Amino acid sequence: MGDTTNITMKDIAQNLGVSVATVSRALKDSPRISVEKREEIKKYAREHNFFPNMIAESLRKSKVQPIKIIGVIIPQLTHFYFSSILSGIEEEATARGYKLMVAQSREMYENEVKICRAFSESKVCGIIVSQAKNTAKYNHFQKLIEQGVPLVFYDRICTGVDASRVVVDDYMGAYSAVTHLIDTGCRRIAYYGTSLTMEIGKNRYNGYRDALLKHGLLPDERLIRTCDNRADAEAITPDVMSLPEPPDAFFAVNDDTAIGILYSCKRMGYAVPEEVSICGFTNGERAIACDPMLTTVEQRGNQVGEEAANILIDKVEGVIPRSSIEKRVVRTRLIIRGTTR
Amino acid sequence: MGDTTNITMKDIAQNLGVSVATVSRALKDSPRISVEKREEIKKYAREHNFFPNMIAESLRKSKVQPIKIIGVIIPQLTHFYFSSILSGIEEEATARGYKLMVAQSREMYENEVKICRAFSESKVCGIIVSQAKNTAKYNHFQKLIEQGVPLVFYDRICTGVDASRVVVDDYMGAYSAVTHLIDTGCRRIAYYGTSLTMEIGKNRYNGYRDALLKHGLLPDERLIRTCDNRADAEAITPDVMSLPEPPDAFFAVNDDTAIGILYSCKRMGYAVPEEVSICGFTNGERAIACDPMLTTVEQRGNQVGEEAANILIDKVEGVIPRSSIEKRVVRTRLIIRGTTR
Repeated sequence: MGDTTNITMKDIAQNLGVSVATVSRALKDSPRISVEKREEIKKYAREHNFFPNMIAESLRKSKVQPIKIIGVIIPQLTHFYFSSILSGIEEEATARGYKLMVAQSREMYENEVKICRAFSESKVCGIIVSQAKNTAKYNHFQKLIEQGVPLVFYDRICTGVDASRVVVDDYMGAYSAVTHLIDTGCRRIAYYGTSLTMEIGKNRYNGYRDALLKHGLLPDERLIRTCDNRADAEAITPDVMSLPEPPDAFFAVNDDTAIGILYSCKRMGYAVPEEVSICGFTNGERAIACDPMLTTVEQRGNQVGEEAANILIDKVEGVIPRSSIEKRVVRTRLIIRGTTR
Repeated sequence: MGDTTNITMKDIAQNLGVSVATVSRALKDSPRISVEKREEIKKYAREHNFFPNMIAESLRKSKVQPIKIIGVIIPQLTHFYFSSILSGIEEEATARGYKLMVAQSREMYENEVKICRAFSESKVCGIIVSQAKNTAKYNHFQKLIEQGVPLVFYDRICTGVDASRVVVDDYMGAYSAVTHLIDTGCRRIAYYGTSLTMEIGKNRYNGYRDALLKHGLLPDERLIRTCDNRADAEAITPDVMSLPEPPDAFFAVNDDTAIGILYSCKRMGYAVPEEVSICGFTNGERAIACDPMLTTVEQRGNQVGEEAANILIDKVEGVIPRSSIEKRVVRTRLIIRGTTR
C-alpha cells in the first residue's frame, strides 16, 4: 500500500500468473472469470493502487464519452473462417458496450485504403483488420497509427507495420496434425501448402517438417507442393500418387485443398483412410459434409475475434498502453474424424 | 416551441385524433390527405419541434451531411446464407456511399430489442433485419417505424409489422426442384421440411405439392416429414426407406438436411443418384463438399442483400416514399449436380 509507482495490467497478470485479458475481464467483473479469480485479481489491484492509465482517467474526469465504434475490415465475409472471426469480435465488443462498423476489402488493396479513410472520417475508436492478399504498401495503416487510431491485425498479419496482432499457432497446429498421421502409421506424408513467403505458409510448413524430423523421417521434396485450393489439388494429386513411392498421407493447409485430395484419391480407387490418410486445416462447414468426414486442425476463428476485440478495447480504454505491441496466439485443436486412421 | 423532448408521430396522431399513417402521409405532403388536414398536422409538428427522423434533425441543426450508416441485424454471422446476405448488403451500401453497423441477435429476442435501441441511439439512417427465431413481440420494430427509421426485412420476414421485405421465391424454387426430380424419372418423392406454420416452410411445401399434382402424382403423407437438420435426417431416413414402397427421391428444405439423407442412404447401401435422388435448398459451401456433390436450389443471398440495401437507401434518399411497403422477390436457381440423375 502507499506505493505510487504505476502498476500495469501486465504487471498484475505476470505476478498472478494469468493473462492480461483475464485481468482486464476480472476488473470489469466479467462473468467469464470465476468469482474467486475476480476477487483475487481485484484485491491485488486495490492493494497495489492500480489505476488504468491517464487516458482512461482523463476521459472519466472530463465525462466525454469516447465514440464506441470499432471498425472491422474483412477480406471476404462469405469465408467461414472470416465470418467466425467477425462473430467473435461482435460478441466481445457487444459485451463491452462497443458497436461495430464492418467493411469488406474483397482482397483489394484499393478498397482497403478507401475503408481506412472512411473509418477514420467516422472517428472509429480503433480498427481490427486482416489485410487483403495483394496489399504490399502500408501507408494507409501507418497513417492511422500516426493519427493515434489503435490497430489490431488478425489472421494475415501485416509485416509492414509493427502493430498488435492475433494469430493461431500455425506451427503447433501443423506439428500435431502430422504427429497424429505418424502415430497412426503413416510414413510418407505429402504437404500441400501456400508459398513459403507468407507467414502462415512458413509456420505450417515448419510444423510439418519438424514433426517428420522429430520422428526420424526426412522431408521428401517430391511430396512438398505449392497448392492451396481444391481445383489445383484435384489437378496435381494424380501425378503425386503416380510417383514410384506414392505418399500414404497428405497434410493440406486448408479444408478446401484437403477435400480436393480426398476426392482425387477416391476417384483413383484408393481407400481413405485405409490406404491414404488426409488431414486439413480450418474446420469449416465443409469438413463435416465430405465423405468420410475430414480430420482437420480447428482454427477457432471465434476465439481469434474475441482476443482481437479485447486487445483493441483494452487499448482504447487505457487498460494497456496504446504504444504497446500485443501479440497473442490462439491455440488450435486437432479434430480427428474419418479421413485418418 | 423550445420544447426539446422528442415527440413521435404516434404522439401527434393521438393528440390530433388521426392515424399514424395519416400523420406520416401528411408530413410527406401526400395528396391522399386533404390540404387542410395536411396543414393542420404540419403546423402541429412544427410547433412541437417534431422531426421525422434523426437525419432530418441533424441536417437542420448543423447543415452537415446526413449520417449514412445502415444498421444490420443478423441472426448468426457464421451461417453461410446470412454472411452472403451481409456481403450483398455491404457491396450495395458501399457502392452508394453508406457504411454498415452490424450486430448479431444470436436468435434471441432480448438481444434484438437491445440492438434496435443501440442502433436508434447511434442514429442509423435505417435498419435491415432478419428476426430471431423466437421473436414473437414486435414493439421494438414498431417503435423504430414510429420514430421514422426505415426498416427492411430479409429472409425471415416479420409478420407482426407491415414493413418492406426481400424474400426468395421459395414456392418456385421447390416447384422447379421437384419438377426436375420428376423429369429425371422419380415417382415417389419424399419431402423433409420445417413446420408449415413458418412462411418459408409453407411456401416450399406448396411448391413441392403443386409440382406433384401438375404431373399427376399424389402427395403421400408417409413421405412428408417435419425435419430440417442433418442429425434428424440421419435418424428418420432408415425408417422412411423401410416403408413397403420406399421413396426414390428426396426434396429437403436445406442442404444440411439433404446431406443427412445422402449419407443415411449411402450407409444403407443405396446408390445415389441411381436408386435414390436427393435435392437440397441453399447451395452453401457444403453442397460441393459432399460426395456426390449436391443438386440444390440456390438461394442467392448476395442478391437478397443487395435488394434489401437498395430499398432501404431508396427510402432514405426519398427515391421511393418512406411510407410505401416494398416487397421484392429474388429468383432462386436450380443447380444440378451429382445427387440427381
